[in-house]
Amino acid sequence: MYDYQAPLRDMQFILSTIAGLDEIAALPNCEEASNDVVSAVLEEAGKFAAGVLAPLNRVGDIQGCRLADGVVHTPEGWQAAYDQFREAGWVGLALPQEYGGQGLPKLISTPVWEMWFSTNMAFAMLPQLNVGQAEALQIAASEEQKQIWLHKVVSGEWGSTMNLTEPQAGSDLAATRTKAVPQEDGTYKLFGQKIFISYGEHELTPNIVHLVLARLPDAPAGVKGLSLFIVPKYLLDAEGNPSTRNDVRCISIEHKMGIHGSPTCTLSYGDEGGAIGYLVGEANRGLETMFIMMNEARFGVGVQGVGLAERAYQYAVNYARTRVQGRDAMTGETGLPIICHPDVQRAILSMRARVMAMRSLLYTAAGWFDLAHHHPEQAVADKYRRYVDLLMPVAKGWCTEVGNEVCDDAIQVFGGMGFVEETGIAQYFRDARIITIYEGTTGIQANDLIGRKILREQGATLYELMADMQHTQQMLAQSAALNNLAIHFQTMLGTLQKASDWILAQDKNQQAQVLAAATPFLYLLGTACGAWQLARLALVAEEKKADAAIDPIYSQNLIELTHFYFHTFGVQIAAYAETVNNAGTSLARFDFNQT
Amino acid sequence: MYDYQAPLRDMQFILSTIAGLDEIAALPNCEEASNDVVSAVLEEAGKFAAGVLAPLNRVGDIQGCRLADGVVHTPEGWQAAYDQFREAGWVGLALPQEYGGQGLPKLISTPVWEMWFSTNMAFAMLPQLNVGQAEALQIAASEEQKQIWLHKVVSGEWGSTMNLTEPQAGSDLAATRTKAVPQEDGTYKLFGQKIFISYGEHELTPNIVHLVLARLPDAPAGVKGLSLFIVPKYLLDAEGNPSTRNDVRCISIEHKMGIHGSPTCTLSYGDEGGAIGYLVGEANRGLETMFIMMNEARFGVGVQGVGLAERAYQYAVNYARTRVQGRDAMTGETGLPIICHPDVQRAILSMRARVMAMRSLLYTAAGWFDLAHHHPEQAVADKYRRYVDLLMPVAKGWCTEVGNEVCDDAIQVFGGMGFVEETGIAQYFRDARIITIYEGTTGIQANDLIGRKILREQGATLYELMADMQHTQQMLAQSAALNNLAIHFQTMLGTLQKASDWILAQDKNQQAQVLAAATPFLYLLGTACGAWQLARLALVAEEKKADAAIDPIYSQNLIELTHFYFHTFGVQIAAYAETVNNAGTSLARFDFNQT
Repeated sequence: MYDYQAPLRDMQFILSTIAGLDEIAALPNCEEASNDVVSAVLEEAGKFAAGVLAPLNRVGDIQGCRLADGVVHTPEGWQAAYDQFREAGWVGLALPQEYGGQGLPKLISTPVWEMWFSTNMAFAMLPQLNVGQAEALQIAASEEQKQIWLHKVVSGEWGSTMNLTEPQAGSDLAATRTKAVPQEDGTYKLFGQKIFISYGEHELTPNIVHLVLARLPDAPAGVKGLSLFIVPKYLLDAEGNPSTRNDVRCISIEHKMGIHGSPTCTLSYGDEGGAIGYLVGEANRGLETMFIMMNEARFGVGVQGVGLAERAYQYAVNYARTRVQGRDAMTGETGLPIICHPDVQRAILSMRARVMAMRSLLYTAAGWFDLAHHHPEQAVADKYRRYVDLLMPVAKGWCTEVGNEVCDDAIQVFGGMGFVEETGIAQYFRDARIITIYEGTTGIQANDLIGRKILREQGATLYELMADMQHTQQMLAQSAALNNLAIHFQTMLGTLQKASDWILAQDKNQQAQVLAAATPFLYLLGTACGAWQLARLALVAEEKKADAAIDPIYSQNLIELTHFYFHTFGVQIAAYAETVNNAGTSLARFDFNQT
Repeated sequence: MYDYQAPLRDMQFILSTIAGLDEIAALPNCEEASNDVVSAVLEEAGKFAAGVLAPLNRVGDIQGCRLADGVVHTPEGWQAAYDQFREAGWVGLALPQEYGGQGLPKLISTPVWEMWFSTNMAFAMLPQLNVGQAEALQIAASEEQKQIWLHKVVSGEWGSTMNLTEPQAGSDLAATRTKAVPQEDGTYKLFGQKIFISYGEHELTPNIVHLVLARLPDAPAGVKGLSLFIVPKYLLDAEGNPSTRNDVRCISIEHKMGIHGSPTCTLSYGDEGGAIGYLVGEANRGLETMFIMMNEARFGVGVQGVGLAERAYQYAVNYARTRVQGRDAMTGETGLPIICHPDVQRAILSMRARVMAMRSLLYTAAGWFDLAHHHPEQAVADKYRRYVDLLMPVAKGWCTEVGNEVCDDAIQVFGGMGFVEETGIAQYFRDARIITIYEGTTGIQANDLIGRKILREQGATLYELMADMQHTQQMLAQSAALNNLAIHFQTMLGTLQKASDWILAQDKNQQAQVLAAATPFLYLLGTACGAWQLARLALVAEEKKADAAIDPIYSQNLIELTHFYFHTFGVQIAAYAETVNNAGTSLARFDFNQT
């Protein structure tokens, strides 16, 4: 209905200011990320997203995927678009040059992926899997395996999947039952069923590389008995080309509420004697490697949150500018577009504020990834590795929840037309609903945040991060123009600090109380991080008002957006803190035998 | 997937305590509402909902409606279910006996409608239109018109529609263009197009009574030039039976995200010479009558909110009790259903708390309807009429928003299975998305609340209501066991009071500021009303703990639920108040030419 406009100005502004593009470009192995290259990449990606991916989004939704005789048919246009995508080198944009990638920093690939997700998330999930798998293979695979598989994955010539879930083992991988039986030739035969496998089967690539979690016969119970295997759809001949069909088949695809263009497959391994697989890394250490892939995927799902939200926001703004209804509350003037009504303005601003908060947080975190990987000083690299680890569940959990909220608000701006499928915004709402679920639900992210990321290290990184936030607060306080923001941000930080103290003060036998607080604490921290990043943006915007190269309206609007966010979302932090402190008590006293 | 269980215990408890069943049953014309009758009606309705409507819900979603040669085909089973529904007398349950209804108070019909909406909202929209139309005709139609049309509408023999929206006139009825041309015989010929007409065409009844807003040739511009017409699908013969087809036709039906079983029609009037219509009430006063129908419908849509939420909650609890995943955070025990995990418990409680808050508010308001209509003392009747008027936008706006939130939470409990259509919960999420839109979006409810319901009378009724809330607070304060609730409720009331004062303190040239605060104020008031009703429930529950006839666990759980609601939702009131106070300033300073 409305063309996608890549938000290049916002992207460039964030990259070049708070996300630290210059600093990243100065890192070893990141030298290519010059301002010129970045501009060119973003511009090209914007054209590709708008010109190739966006027009296919609704096609994918309407046609969906079809399984016939074991073959999954993707929507019309998928093949041509994927070929173009692959040939343009987008798959390996941020993957190592050593394996055929372009080696750009994650800071650059993040806005690019945002554009893919904005315009066609169901499609973009296919190459997204390659990126995650490439990260995992790079770390865990043998040199020989890398030579055989990794180049094809990085180039996108072959597809990738990750196979974790089984019917009885959704979020609980300890319950995994798929077996891997060692063969005399050093390979393995796999037997079992995997469900919810995105792009588990399709004809878009001549081969598919499945990464599969399975158990060796002598493996210990639980997650410490999981090993990781490469199981190709087609076994390779002596030249490394796909030849014999392996014993893995798609036996059904899901009928889902959204992302219809992305086939969600049930894969059956070993129905005809065993699917041949190759052990990746050490036996029984499979989960650690899979977590590399999953962490990459989790960050990517967070980016899906801002991608979907940005496009939904664009839809809403465009509709609000053109839909004429009602009259001005003050003057009685009629014939005005609905963007003139205060309630619609409030909705628009609340969407844009959250989009910019998410984007600022995710791009900043992408820069931390790069610092963690490439900074020559170990202490600096370590610090940002800790930041990334701490905030991964927030980037995933919070940005996906907020992404859904923004899509929901966009429908509301459309009114009745939002509920009608033809306008296209309904698809965003339906598609978005998966992102708080896959790669670990929000609840699982919250438990990860509390358990692995905070309690396990007694909150060390969290307090380190809070000190950085406090530094931003001091800069606000020193700015006469932003002093009001400083006061409010101080309140938020005080609340975050108290809630964090409370979590760390609970002793072991109060763990249920702490876990009852996990999701509200994730919202609290996410909302505070969003406020932090917008505050950093406001500081830059205030400074840039004197810069003739920057449109002063743009800068002023960023500052107003920050005020709006503080008074609309920042103020919810106190409520989350109350829930953190009290939810567990209610749970303990409520008798769940009688709901 | 899971059978519907009518929540009879909750319904009966609320009816017989805070909603004041005994008081209502003592009113003139409400004598039939004895406890025995009420129990029998609820039980029968529960059986009908579970046995007849629930099994058709997914059928309706999958099959949807189909338009072929001007005929709309509803899903399989719709006809038989509607015949049963009509024959059992459910349509006229709370409509006047004089016209063939059963004359029960709204207090009784409200839980019954909740059950219809819980089990099959797309179906229940059909008879729901009859109820609204009957209310309108009863007040505005001539005695002759009542004799001809009203009996058939009350019995459900004929279907009903309301025709307001046109392509250029969605929420803005001033822009209505449909014309009505007077004929010499006293009838009118209508010409125009109406969109979004629920059940605008179908074969379920031998006739359909369209109530249509249109303009007479000499009508003034704007909403003061709208007249109301009965336009039947079939004109009647001398015996009052449907005979000749009138000139109104369904030219398309919408492809929607949800409520697929309910046809949403575009109706074209007068393509072949004019659709014959009959003026209802005075010329140019049509909107007033239509608002009667719409007010009835708005309350009903609020009940849809709790109906959908209740069923979604049941889905989530059932799934959480049977889905085995993970291990106990404290003991490490495995093989436990997910309802044992604190984060899932939190989700379950947060659903149940909101369901009970909405239900308590809606049933209480239904009782107010009855008091307004039937109380012999004018002053008492007037008071409750004012309460109903004030809270109608809250009952609609807040309960539909919260209804959506609960459906969203239910999907989250299902995890990946929630995104798959087979489980059925996805349909609830999709269906629910319309309820914050139709019969006036949440933004329109919020503007109505602020403008017509508060500012127009300088907040008189709002302050009257707050005094009643304060009375509940004092009762909490007098209860040693509930004193903690009293403190928190006092905080909420103080905040509500301040926010209300602020709204009333703004002068006329700050109207944009006030309207920017409309939606957050609606949330604030809705959340506070929910807290109020749960507080009343907690007071009763505390008292009933000594009553051997009541399960003490049930009573204690209600009290815990109130605590949970206070600490999870009640605490958001302060955040809403901040937004009320500040949103307008940001809007005024933001330059919307550059979004």
